[in-house]
Amino acid sequence: MFREKLLKDIEFIIELDKMKSIYRKTNVIGEDRQEDDAQHSWHISVMAIILAEYTNEKIDLLKVLKMLLTHDLVEIYAGDTFCYDKDIESKRKRELAAAEKLYNLVDRKKADELRALWDEFEAMETPESLFANSMDRLQPLLANYKNGGGTWKKYDVSKSDVYQRIAPVKQSSDELWCYVNYMIEDAFQKGLITRR
Amino acid sequence: MFREKLLKDIEFIIELDKMKSIYRKTNVIGEDRQEDDAQHSWHISVMAIILAEYTNEKIDLLKVLKMLLTHDLVEIYAGDTFCYDKDIESKRKRELAAAEKLYNLVDRKKADELRALWDEFEAMETPESLFANSMDRLQPLLANYKNGGGTWKKYDVSKSDVYQRIAPVKQSSDELWCYVNYMIEDAFQKGLITRR
Repeated sequence: MFREKLLKDIEFIIELDKMKSIYRKTNVIGEDRQEDDAQHSWHISVMAIILAEYTNEKIDLLKVLKMLLTHDLVEIYAGDTFCYDKDIESKRKRELAAAEKLYNLVDRKKADELRALWDEFEAMETPESLFANSMDRLQPLLANYKNGGGTWKKYDVSKSDVYQRIAPVKQSSDELWCYVNYMIEDAFQKGLITRR
Repeated sequence: MFREKLLKDIEFIIELDKMKSIYRKTNVIGEDRQEDDAQHSWHISVMAIILAEYTNEKIDLLKVLKMLLTHDLVEIYAGDTFCYDKDIESKRKRELAAAEKLYNLVDRKKADELRALWDEFEAMETPESLFANSMDRLQPLLANYKNGGGTWKKYDVSKSDVYQRIAPVKQSSDELWCYVNYMIEDAFQKGLITRR
């Protein structure tokens, strides 16, 4: 009656609802509750629409949006890893296993596209993935700045760690980088970041 | 030091965080909590990526994603209106006032694009807006189906109201419409929708 492919797509869409229950470390601005992956993925996607004009190189915005909307799906099975966590190896292993499980839920062609987008996002070598990573990292930075330090304070993150984490912005947009630089120094001055 | 435009964009992005606190009537699947506008906007945007291949006419997916990611922004000031609410006039009035306030936060060019996308979404005359509205309406339908009736049961919604609400799918995709039709009849058979 219905194509197998469509039924798989519907089941996949229902499975994705779990993104609304994967909590991140960052709080919603002004609230005492953590944001989840669905909220975060939405926010960075709208940010991409608003900030695309500031990139140094012209980018394919459709590809960026597809990347941002789907790059955290692996966390449905791998969970969220705190961005200042140093155990990158374990994160990578968990996420690769999660990707296998996740992309098997849709047909091969769709799985290949989603997997390629995720690999490109992770590799950070193209203008699109550098800009997408910039959005992914700028959003919690803005939240921490507005939340009186947020996870910077809670987990005693150093200024040099913040700079390392936000580095993709430097490669993606001179104008955004200039603003990010100002914001981090201002946060340090104000005591929102306490270690050098 | 920074362009006025960039500073406005950053403030706008921070204001958008409020979408994470605008609650809708529909519950997250399997949970006793309502989903919010940010989660909903993310979910329908990923749905658009997954289901775009089923439309009758070829569509501009970038435009669809921009529409879906931003069409609910007016609710930051207008609040969520239940989709089966009959008082459409009051909703329209509140949302028009909200749009004035919201789009004044960014520069004219960006405001014009966002406003045009919203107007197109609301008018439901183009293939893109018909597909976007289909996603916006199919997502809570799937959630109700999985939530043992959800808002259909809670607010005693009739089958004919469900059909009226989901009508854009009929114009957008024969294949999706066939599935939606099956799902609504199945929900009625199972008593998830109790009135004709």
